[in-house]
Amino acid sequence: MQGQVAKGDKMKSRARTMIGLMVLLASAGAPAQKAGDTAAGVRAADAAWLKVFSAQDLDKSVAFFDEQGSMLVPNIPIATGKKAVAKEIATSFAYGSVVWHLNKAGVSRSGDLGYTNGTYIFTVKDPTAKPAIDKGKYLTVWKKQPDGSWKVLFDMFSSDQPP
Amino acid sequence: MQGQVAKGDKMKSRARTMIGLMVLLASAGAPAQKAGDTAAGVRAADAAWLKVFSAQDLDKSVAFFDEQGSMLVPNIPIATGKKAVAKEIATSFAYGSVVWHLNKAGVSRSGDLGYTNGTYIFTVKDPTAKPAIDKGKYLTVWKKQPDGSWKVLFDMFSSDQPP
Repeated sequence: MQGQVAKGDKMKSRARTMIGLMVLLASAGAPAQKAGDTAAGVRAADAAWLKVFSAQDLDKSVAFFDEQGSMLVPNIPIATGKKAVAKEIATSFAYGSVVWHLNKAGVSRSGDLGYTNGTYIFTVKDPTAKPAIDKGKYLTVWKKQPDGSWKVLFDMFSSDQPP
Repeated sequence: MQGQVAKGDKMKSRARTMIGLMVLLASAGAPAQKAGDTAAGVRAADAAWLKVFSAQDLDKSVAFFDEQGSMLVPNIPIATGKKAVAKEIATSFAYGSVVWHLNKAGVSRSGDLGYTNGTYIFTVKDPTAKPAIDKGKYLTVWKKQPDGSWKVLFDMFSSDQPP
């Protein structure tokens, strides 16, 4: 993770309060669904995934991936399959915590393929680490499974901060 | 762009030969389509886009984006809309040239939403630049337009190389 660091305790404190609020909002469950929102399924999947990911539940976080699902993490090659994905998520959990905010979502007319896109804030666990916070963007492609659940085919993110 | 640099003229020469071959292959047009390949449309769109992108045709490269299409470039916020996308592509063209290789492609049953995923090699224009080459991965989400053409809703890439 790379990024500009909020300078001073005051800014750090504000950032942590904001992240705390975002975790609380995420924990409140899936956002209210608008009538006729064809992307409601992937919005709910995105929110449910955020809930277990921000709680750092490794098994439940990996379970959101399709059997052939991939994570596309900056500075390493694509990781495909649950074993490779679990390794990347465990690395992320060891390094810090993430919350994300969905911006756009869409689903095909047939309801079997969808996407979510938004922004994230990653907070490094080590309180002396610099940078302490990274902000960036994500893009997730979702595939509906035979049981009707949505699973991640591809999940990709990158920092918005200068290198 | 970040990356390990091939050390020595011999390796650089090999890398340039490989890139030359890839450009030639890309210029040969869309890959042969297998019968029953439901993702043939996005495979062809990916190949056609590569052709104009590797030729550094800015207008034709931007024309592959949906009106609401976005580029998700490392170290800057998401760029949405043709004007913002054109700026990012122009920056890329000024910096160097890219070729990519499709690995996976898929389309929804309804044929209106699809994705392509693969790897890229970016070569910096300045022959004295270090690193001279970056290798990475990409993920593109495609939306079929009313006229039947496929356009880019989201295009995202990141380096595979250590920072």
